[in-house]
Amino acid sequence: MNDLNNNLPGVFSPVITPFNKDLSVDHKKLIQQCKWLLSQNVGLAVFGTNSEANSLSVDEKIFLLDKLIDHGIDPNKLMPGTGCCAITDTIKLTKHAVKHGCVGILMLPPFYYKAVSDDGLFNYFSNVIESVNDDRLRIYLYHIPPIAKVGISLKLIEALLRKYPQYIAGIKDSSGDWVNTQRMLDQNWDNFSIFAGSEAFLLQTLRNGGTGCISATANINPEGIHNLYKNWREPDADIYQEELNNLRSIVQSYPLIPALKAIISHYHKDTNWNILRPPLSAMNNADSEELIKKIKKINFSIKSLH
Amino acid sequence: MNDLNNNLPGVFSPVITPFNKDLSVDHKKLIQQCKWLLSQNVGLAVFGTNSEANSLSVDEKIFLLDKLIDHGIDPNKLMPGTGCCAITDTIKLTKHAVKHGCVGILMLPPFYYKAVSDDGLFNYFSNVIESVNDDRLRIYLYHIPPIAKVGISLKLIEALLRKYPQYIAGIKDSSGDWVNTQRMLDQNWDNFSIFAGSEAFLLQTLRNGGTGCISATANINPEGIHNLYKNWREPDADIYQEELNNLRSIVQSYPLIPALKAIISHYHKDTNWNILRPPLSAMNNADSEELIKKIKKINFSIKSLH
Repeated sequence: MNDLNNNLPGVFSPVITPFNKDLSVDHKKLIQQCKWLLSQNVGLAVFGTNSEANSLSVDEKIFLLDKLIDHGIDPNKLMPGTGCCAITDTIKLTKHAVKHGCVGILMLPPFYYKAVSDDGLFNYFSNVIESVNDDRLRIYLYHIPPIAKVGISLKLIEALLRKYPQYIAGIKDSSGDWVNTQRMLDQNWDNFSIFAGSEAFLLQTLRNGGTGCISATANINPEGIHNLYKNWREPDADIYQEELNNLRSIVQSYPLIPALKAIISHYHKDTNWNILRPPLSAMNNADSEELIKKIKKINFSIKSLH
Repeated sequence: MNDLNNNLPGVFSPVITPFNKDLSVDHKKLIQQCKWLLSQNVGLAVFGTNSEANSLSVDEKIFLLDKLIDHGIDPNKLMPGTGCCAITDTIKLTKHAVKHGCVGILMLPPFYYKAVSDDGLFNYFSNVIESVNDDRLRIYLYHIPPIAKVGISLKLIEALLRKYPQYIAGIKDSSGDWVNTQRMLDQNWDNFSIFAGSEAFLLQTLRNGGTGCISATANINPEGIHNLYKNWREPDADIYQEELNNLRSIVQSYPLIPALKAIISHYHKDTNWNILRPPLSAMNNADSEELIKKIKKINFSIKSLH
């Protein structure tokens, strides 16, 4: 599963979404950012949590996906998030992504209703799979209980794998709880790729048979994260991991999406990169300057801008 | 504010949504249910939490709203829920509801991203109001932290009322926390209608200057709830309230939406009423029979079916 020759990238970035001043998406800038990430060997988990995907309508996501494909982005590098609250939305967006040949789909559980049963979630995913009804569908479940407040249990994964082994391809574990990731890795499920939700767990994940990570910080540090992914068997791997952790811990000491946008905005000298859709807000200038100072102090910068 | 001659109904039902076996919405049955509720003097908070609104796409909600209006439902009795995660969805659906002349809009805050600031939420509502840009817009904020996990603070209400007194018309408080409702009632905001999120707080709300309630149980007991609303100044009001509480406490000892659907299904002798969209699930037969037995024991039944 750690095979670098595998089609699936080992590091994905939940690509941050650039907005114009009127809050519409700047799709041209998104295409540029995606092309830059690809040049850094990082796959594109567009429409993730850190993409502010849940602040975009389904139609906006379909439009953006079409634009990315139209502009030559390789669908083999695309793992769009398609999980919405409404099953009809999830089916519509998933069908569209599969039609484009996206290598995978990152799927949130429906997240409005809380304390739903595993049976209810099973019925949901089951209905999506059978409605999409396409052999090319590869679902990566998205477990992010700190935000979604609805999670994916081991029992649910097992039930889905039993019925849909060909469609349930893996999981992104953004629980932030290594014990949970370890427990999943211990199952040794066949043809099931486990991605850490942060590069902080990348080395541990790879050493325990996982596939890689899908990490917000890959938006600003794709090279560094891919470097650990490529060299995790080398003696220096723990040092690489520590370096990644240093950067990560600075960035995540601020609200993550505004911090990522502040950094990109700084290095691109483009204030529009600092625009978020409400209810999220941009960092204030003081925090922004402090953040930039801190990351420069550990000698971090974005070297190869597009 | 308690004026019965006021246009605004004092009791609203978040109308439960009937599905067909293929999980599509049965719009004809929804129209019937709405007409029955109106005949019981209850307003229609379609697309509420208990309507499984967050399991419907924006286009499905627009379709249903059109159908309701086409079939003669009075928009003066309609308070559709229009708050989605994505601001573009909220604007689209709100515009549509306002165009139809709906008496009010029940608006959830965006609920995917957690721990968002009041400023971020203010910017969200502000952007919605200015994008809808219609004098007829009347927003009732929807505070339901147990489910949305994102709430509406007093400070936020105050900030919104300061800037948009003509648009911010009230709130539904589904916190389940009387202290919170009381605190809002104590503010005596001008032209601001406070609805309890359950009839359990109806009498208290009316006695303290509130407007009424928007309650799930109004789907099955519209007459009883409206009766207390109409007669809250009568000496028997506390007895009415106690009767309502007895029914409510039985129903809400089960998952609420499946319980409501089981009761409607029983009295209509229509098993399709028992269909929920995943991730929610219908009650099993044993629970369903137990529930019906319990409500019959307190002499409850739905007397006047449509």
